[in-house]
Amino acid sequence: MRATLLYGDHDIRIEDVPDPVLSTGGDAIVRVVAACVCGSDLWGYRGVVPTRGPRRIGHEFVGVVESVGPDVERIAVGDFVIAPFYDCDMTCANCLNGVSTSCLHGGWWGADDRMGGFADGAQGQYVRVPHADGTLVATPGQPDPALVPGLLTLADVMGTGHHAALSAGVTEGSTVVVVGDGAVGLCAVLAAKRLGASRIVAMSRHAERQAVAREFGATDIVEERGAEGIARVKELFDGIGPDCVLECVGTTESMDQAIRSARPGGMVGYVGVPNGGSELPIRLMFGTNVGANGGVAPVRNYIEELLPEVLSGAIDPGRVFDLELPLEEVAEAYAAMDERRAIKVLLRP
Amino acid sequence: MRATLLYGDHDIRIEDVPDPVLSTGGDAIVRVVAACVCGSDLWGYRGVVPTRGPRRIGHEFVGVVESVGPDVERIAVGDFVIAPFYDCDMTCANCLNGVSTSCLHGGWWGADDRMGGFADGAQGQYVRVPHADGTLVATPGQPDPALVPGLLTLADVMGTGHHAALSAGVTEGSTVVVVGDGAVGLCAVLAAKRLGASRIVAMSRHAERQAVAREFGATDIVEERGAEGIARVKELFDGIGPDCVLECVGTTESMDQAIRSARPGGMVGYVGVPNGGSELPIRLMFGTNVGANGGVAPVRNYIEELLPEVLSGAIDPGRVFDLELPLEEVAEAYAAMDERRAIKVLLRP
Repeated sequence: MRATLLYGDHDIRIEDVPDPVLSTGGDAIVRVVAACVCGSDLWGYRGVVPTRGPRRIGHEFVGVVESVGPDVERIAVGDFVIAPFYDCDMTCANCLNGVSTSCLHGGWWGADDRMGGFADGAQGQYVRVPHADGTLVATPGQPDPALVPGLLTLADVMGTGHHAALSAGVTEGSTVVVVGDGAVGLCAVLAAKRLGASRIVAMSRHAERQAVAREFGATDIVEERGAEGIARVKELFDGIGPDCVLECVGTTESMDQAIRSARPGGMVGYVGVPNGGSELPIRLMFGTNVGANGGVAPVRNYIEELLPEVLSGAIDPGRVFDLELPLEEVAEAYAAMDERRAIKVLLRP
Repeated sequence: MRATLLYGDHDIRIEDVPDPVLSTGGDAIVRVVAACVCGSDLWGYRGVVPTRGPRRIGHEFVGVVESVGPDVERIAVGDFVIAPFYDCDMTCANCLNGVSTSCLHGGWWGADDRMGGFADGAQGQYVRVPHADGTLVATPGQPDPALVPGLLTLADVMGTGHHAALSAGVTEGSTVVVVGDGAVGLCAVLAAKRLGASRIVAMSRHAERQAVAREFGATDIVEERGAEGIARVKELFDGIGPDCVLECVGTTESMDQAIRSARPGGMVGYVGVPNGGSELPIRLMFGTNVGANGGVAPVRNYIEELLPEVLSGAIDPGRVFDLELPLEEVAEAYAAMDERRAIKVLLRP
């Protein structure tokens, strides 16, 4: 099959690799219908995270089940399925606690998995899925093709935006600021709106992203950054700041901005993959009672809740995809995201 | 009047200082009935926090109102009152948001206040209280003298323990670990019990403190610290860890222990004054979805809730006082706390 490999700094290729095979009784093989490029893929692509050797990449996909192992019970050949950006059994204590990203038996796409076989990346034609019964969620019947982008966001960005909002405690009437206008930040706007936020500020200086943010429910846009951005946000909320700040970038600067923007007693929900050795400034947080909660989003735990709304059209997170390319053009997909020519690129194998 | 001054490393004295006078219309003068020494006072006493010159100290007191300014409406001469460890107006946006420690017009005992006058420390005979209507809570009538220690804990340690528990999200059925067996840690045990925790582990290697922890509701004691303490705690909770960890010390080591003890998706409620430049390890927290919430406890916001239970005897946080001395012996009070001969010392002017 064809699959994507990251070789190093700005060197991404599509090559022939072995077809995956069922290697445990609980596996499924899924034919990828749509995959995409994540902002976090860019850390490796940009060389910020060094690549030791060519490695499979991609962790978001939806597709159709081609075959299943003998122990698989909930998923059947022919099902249209959504996979979260990791595999998990959904039966261990952590999965049952709602934290399937800490599954005691799970793993990550594109990494050697714990069952002995190679874990495929999602940016390829097929993926072997361990713990298929836990990992995959099947849609009721085959979905309308127009819904595929929205369904694909449940693999990561929509669930991750939702996690930011939940982690920050967004609820009916909350005031919210979203730091980051990538796909996750935009989905965080949508998630906050869905949870009943009364006012949502999107921090963005990019006209097209601002437009999507407004569609998703942003009531205000702030273009300033750093100290000016913080001052502007405070000003919008009576000089105090918002209840909740959703940090969807992961740099030291963005986290600092988030913590300094929240009102005393407020909460930062963070889902940006921490990059650049940022630590949280505990003395500042102690003095203002601003908390930080979040992490790698357990999106598998959210799929059942969000899926009906995507299927009904109540929410349309698929709007974050503004470029679609064949899988063979994956290098262009990375370049477009890297250069911020695209918010998020959908790939069709 | 007589009042305590910190001169420097292990140099604490009681001296004659000017009597306080009403200096704003909203002031009250309170005659101190009982004050005490706080673990955080020891940072200065031990020289960990340098002292630039002699300064008033002490921030926990209860007493009787001697006089009030013309604008005071809620508090009257003769009232028995509890003061939180700061002053606040209870009318600004932050106070109304439940974060009176961030009062827009408040200040701290023993610091120059913002109304122009000198702010007394609590370890003295009298205290001028700014914003008396906001700051002070009067008991209904004169309390039974036996209740004075319990009432005094509402000035800081009981409210602070409660804040740790609330910040960590302790609720009916939560599993809880408390790091720190000082007065705040012990009160955190009591607060967790009160909020319905199903299992509460107190980390302590001190027999008398363990006994108080058990009285307050601890179901288990862990004596180990560091990596061994973490392993023991994980073991007690199915290898996963507890839902909530209450960090009541404030050192780098104790915060690290707290974060590493919590289960994935768990929450650290922290109230130990951060000391030693500790920062929060965001990558670890991101990977495990362990959040950190808390800070300088807005105890004024909790007094009305906790007061009836102290008055009725439903809770007896006054048990944390295991030594009572006349104010004139304040130096011995500090030494006893410093050398851990006493959990907490009550001072009688």
